[in-house]
Amino acid sequence: MTDSSTASAAPSERTFAGPDLARPVAPGGAHRGVGVGEVRLDGGFWGALQETNARATLAHCLEWMERLGWVANFDRVAAGSTGGDRPGWQFSDSEVYKLLEALAWEHGRTGDASVDASFNALVDRVAAAQDDDGYLNTCFGHAGQPDRYTDLSSGHELYCTGHLLQAAVARVRTGGHDRLVEVARRAADHVCREFGEGGRDGICGHPEIEVGLAELGRALGEPRYTEQARRFLERRGHGTLPPVALLGPSYFQDDVPVRDAGVWRGHAVRALYLAAGAVDVAVDTGDDELLAAVERQWTRSVERRTYLTGGMGSRHQDEGFGDDWELPADRAYCETCAGVASVMVSWRLLLATGDARYADLMERTFYNVVATSPRSDGRAFFYANPLQQREPGADVRADTENPRAEGGVRAPWFDVSCCPTNVARTLASWQAYAATVSGDVVSLVQHAPAELRVALDDGGQVALRVRTAYPADGLVRVEVLDAPDRPITLRLRVPHWADGATLGAQGEPDDGGPRPVAPGWAEVRRTFTPGDVFTLDLPTEPRLTWPDPRVDALRGAVAVERGPLVLCLESVDLPDDVALEDVRIDTSVAPRAHEDGALVRVGVLAPVAAGPGRPPFSAGPPAAVPDGPAIDVPLVPYHRWAERGPSTMRVFVPVQ
Amino acid sequence: MTDSSTASAAPSERTFAGPDLARPVAPGGAHRGVGVGEVRLDGGFWGALQETNARATLAHCLEWMERLGWVANFDRVAAGSTGGDRPGWQFSDSEVYKLLEALAWEHGRTGDASVDASFNALVDRVAAAQDDDGYLNTCFGHAGQPDRYTDLSSGHELYCTGHLLQAAVARVRTGGHDRLVEVARRAADHVCREFGEGGRDGICGHPEIEVGLAELGRALGEPRYTEQARRFLERRGHGTLPPVALLGPSYFQDDVPVRDAGVWRGHAVRALYLAAGAVDVAVDTGDDELLAAVERQWTRSVERRTYLTGGMGSRHQDEGFGDDWELPADRAYCETCAGVASVMVSWRLLLATGDARYADLMERTFYNVVATSPRSDGRAFFYANPLQQREPGADVRADTENPRAEGGVRAPWFDVSCCPTNVARTLASWQAYAATVSGDVVSLVQHAPAELRVALDDGGQVALRVRTAYPADGLVRVEVLDAPDRPITLRLRVPHWADGATLGAQGEPDDGGPRPVAPGWAEVRRTFTPGDVFTLDLPTEPRLTWPDPRVDALRGAVAVERGPLVLCLESVDLPDDVALEDVRIDTSVAPRAHEDGALVRVGVLAPVAAGPGRPPFSAGPPAAVPDGPAIDVPLVPYHRWAERGPSTMRVFVPVQ
Repeated sequence: MTDSSTASAAPSERTFAGPDLARPVAPGGAHRGVGVGEVRLDGGFWGALQETNARATLAHCLEWMERLGWVANFDRVAAGSTGGDRPGWQFSDSEVYKLLEALAWEHGRTGDASVDASFNALVDRVAAAQDDDGYLNTCFGHAGQPDRYTDLSSGHELYCTGHLLQAAVARVRTGGHDRLVEVARRAADHVCREFGEGGRDGICGHPEIEVGLAELGRALGEPRYTEQARRFLERRGHGTLPPVALLGPSYFQDDVPVRDAGVWRGHAVRALYLAAGAVDVAVDTGDDELLAAVERQWTRSVERRTYLTGGMGSRHQDEGFGDDWELPADRAYCETCAGVASVMVSWRLLLATGDARYADLMERTFYNVVATSPRSDGRAFFYANPLQQREPGADVRADTENPRAEGGVRAPWFDVSCCPTNVARTLASWQAYAATVSGDVVSLVQHAPAELRVALDDGGQVALRVRTAYPADGLVRVEVLDAPDRPITLRLRVPHWADGATLGAQGEPDDGGPRPVAPGWAEVRRTFTPGDVFTLDLPTEPRLTWPDPRVDALRGAVAVERGPLVLCLESVDLPDDVALEDVRIDTSVAPRAHEDGALVRVGVLAPVAAGPGRPPFSAGPPAAVPDGPAIDVPLVPYHRWAERGPSTMRVFVPVQ
Repeated sequence: MTDSSTASAAPSERTFAGPDLARPVAPGGAHRGVGVGEVRLDGGFWGALQETNARATLAHCLEWMERLGWVANFDRVAAGSTGGDRPGWQFSDSEVYKLLEALAWEHGRTGDASVDASFNALVDRVAAAQDDDGYLNTCFGHAGQPDRYTDLSSGHELYCTGHLLQAAVARVRTGGHDRLVEVARRAADHVCREFGEGGRDGICGHPEIEVGLAELGRALGEPRYTEQARRFLERRGHGTLPPVALLGPSYFQDDVPVRDAGVWRGHAVRALYLAAGAVDVAVDTGDDELLAAVERQWTRSVERRTYLTGGMGSRHQDEGFGDDWELPADRAYCETCAGVASVMVSWRLLLATGDARYADLMERTFYNVVATSPRSDGRAFFYANPLQQREPGADVRADTENPRAEGGVRAPWFDVSCCPTNVARTLASWQAYAATVSGDVVSLVQHAPAELRVALDDGGQVALRVRTAYPADGLVRVEVLDAPDRPITLRLRVPHWADGATLGAQGEPDDGGPRPVAPGWAEVRRTFTPGDVFTLDLPTEPRLTWPDPRVDALRGAVAVERGPLVLCLESVDLPDDVALEDVRIDTSVAPRAHEDGALVRVGVLAPVAAGPGRPPFSAGPPAAVPDGPAIDVPLVPYHRWAERGPSTMRVFVPVQ
């Protein structure tokens, strides 16, 4: 069995080869991701989220888009009855496409016929709105609407098309070459004609078409699409997009060419979707300089512009990255979609390079951004993911669309509702991010209870069963169910925080009990026998984590992490007479494990008397010494906060 | 001589009585402000700013508004040639009106005929655009434009009218009842018909009409205007304004009625203009509950939502107040206009109550927000006034409009250019905020070299000469030039920070040398004789100022103040090999006076090594102990920063 979507295969071989090889990204890099059919989650943290996504979120998104007329926008275009009164923002089509992508992955994962039926019913309505020349958009180009491509800065036409292509990529990799794929092919051909050589010299204000074209090019073996993606990338960064009010060209990364930039800036989702497309193009065209540029941007942006949660985007104003070290807890934007986009970039860089640091950031972002957004019932979401909440969020009615992206309370839907469908498509394909293959090397990238049946690139198959309660517990037990009769390599990721991790390998020649393994990849190479068991033991005692001294907003405060989980202190866990703002952590007492969080020792400051009618500053150092008895308070995983009614919250607790 | 604009005077008496009684606010409260003609600044800090305003800023604003077509918008309406292609935002008319207000005050101050000619030439163009029924707006209501009052949330029509009325108030108080006043009267009558009893039940998304109507009502003795202002105030806070994208009703204070609110929230300029109007209405209608509500909001907002500079507005996204204690230095918005608006509110509360705390906040805001905005040449401005700049601002070309309101570099003009004209009108009338009169009590509110000839409310006149180098020096010498032959009271404000202040009163019966005076009002009551000299000595040694422990973003850092000036550390004052982010202040060494700033002892952290590809957090407390020799570095007044080329800057310096 060969990977049907590598760049070197002939076009005719590239279409669907079954869910085993269906995966979010088909790289030409060092590693390939496993197919959605190669891994089956067996409950656990992500299995539960995936089930809720399947059971609740997919239908929830469809209901809302029906209710608001975002799906009917396609019907009205098909019927010739649309106009300037169309409901929804310019980019609402993209939400329908992201839902299609989620449905495609979900069907690929389960084979559920009802999911396929939903998918096909939606595709029929989308397809009916496509113009004869392949153009497909419900907001532009019809009677009563602005002409096509008259607002490249804000119109989001190519952005929507990019999401259409990503949906088709998911479909071609999970269901075969059917109607949506043809719709996407015609849309992509239209884009190539319109914006290709001799066509419009334009780019879209919101990157996305680049990654969509590059991936569709791979999925269909169509180098024209890769070339068009490359063209869009190279055009960007020369200040040609008309400005949008109050924001400079860095807002949409039109200030510096991708290959010259040193750091991510401007709108975080835009920066990250663009970077994802850049990696795809770099890998497919052998452009090492471009790949190195994205790695450089990743490194600097992660080291200076990324939250402890993996969240990206410090600013509400432009939903954007801040300056270096600008990481306020309270106004952290950390848009859920930026978390998804960060995963897209890191995944591509992991596949291109095999470097475990990319997988580390993915894990951090999965647990603390992606998993934080959906409420436990899958029917409400965080859009922004701040690390501190000073005022409890107001209750949001279940049937009310919410304009807020402020955090504090999850909402069923938003005015700009990009996050729910982004969560849905990510969760539906989550297991495909759990492992990679390169030659005869199988790498377990994310730790989750699962069964894997993985085709090796050079032939043969490895079957593994992973048992773990991770992240609640650090023990990851891997049993070999099947393996070829020759030496191969099995690698397990040891996260960077896992100092003191050990790997026990039953039946190894030098078996002297578990051996220490350093962060990175713990590797075993040998001829495996069914029944072999490996046990990775990751230390998951709660630990204190301190901010870099250059992060001004967090000075004098500390966070507690446990395994991959960032913990937080919620006001509902404090005694009634203690205000969250008055709590100071005693770092001389090590945090102790408590349920799936921790217990920490804190002191409580005397409430400060009402001020004298002046700004809150005084002539002497403030009395910041607790005056009451120390108490132990529980911290809970950040991803679970705000599930127990309105509360205030903080990840970073000031130090006593 | 009586105050011609008190609420009890008959209408016919209320028109212009000469510049002696021309003042920004004519209250019915406990005190009155001095007239622009009652005080003449004699150089000094504010005299210099006022001269630059007169010499450069007024013409600069007019040039820009001519260049951009904002003045010509009126000509096009008059000519019937306007349409949907009108340049400028919906509110650009208001900039013309604020310039008219500034010109009126400037003419009142100096009697300069060329200023009067500029004023009259502009008035002619404005007047020609007024519709027959009094409506006056260049953006709505004409061919090719949206109908009148079809976008109350964002259209700014009543906001513009409010500024027109304020300009007319300045004129009626300084130049008499001429053409602009008639234009304003017709516009106000139109508003009363359109939005009065039985009319439209609407309010404007941006408050301003309230304060404009209330003040015009006083100036013209027209209670209908006060009543309409009251009506707008009472209508607000019931969620009737259509929402604007992504922002809730608190953005324009339509969430809670003014008299019920506990704190300012949402867009800072809107909140403060509304509060100013509320004080005017409360005072004029004897509504003590409403006055108490604004005092309550002032108190809580100042104590929890106000920067050390007096700046208000923590958030860029909505140009708004943040939550309590949300006072980040780096993303402080502190819009210049919010500083002006804060002065408007505090001035009204000072006049209504006589409480020195309102004057203290005005001083803080004057020196550290209003004076910070204009560049020393009066031809470029800060819009936002952050207290920390991590990346040096890019140079802005002198002839380029700038979309940014980010701070870091002053710009000649902005896309939304509300600040330059707001600075201009405030500086042109600054001396009128320097003193108040109540009965036979004269209060020196702001300390500046000046000559005052003040009419007492109960007859007679006091003439004083103030000599001082304040704020560079704390000595304020007041000489009596003329006084009635009976006991009167002279009060000098002792700022809240002036612990250890003394007042020396030559020739007082108990003259035993200077006596200590506590913050508040230092009072002398007696029969004064020409030649009497009083010397207020305010300590202006540099002092450390610490943030409240609840201000998370400033924890572990300290500021240095000197007199009313907030100081800052600019990168251009550091050795070349020292990064601002690595500087730690040694608070065990008292800051020493140095030029008009201070010298402080600092240590320098070893530069932190490049991170390992992870977010900037570590398992142990960061090494934050300086490893080099201590050095002394100068701090400069915050209002002067960014005058020496691009720099980084911080007001709050982390403590060693």
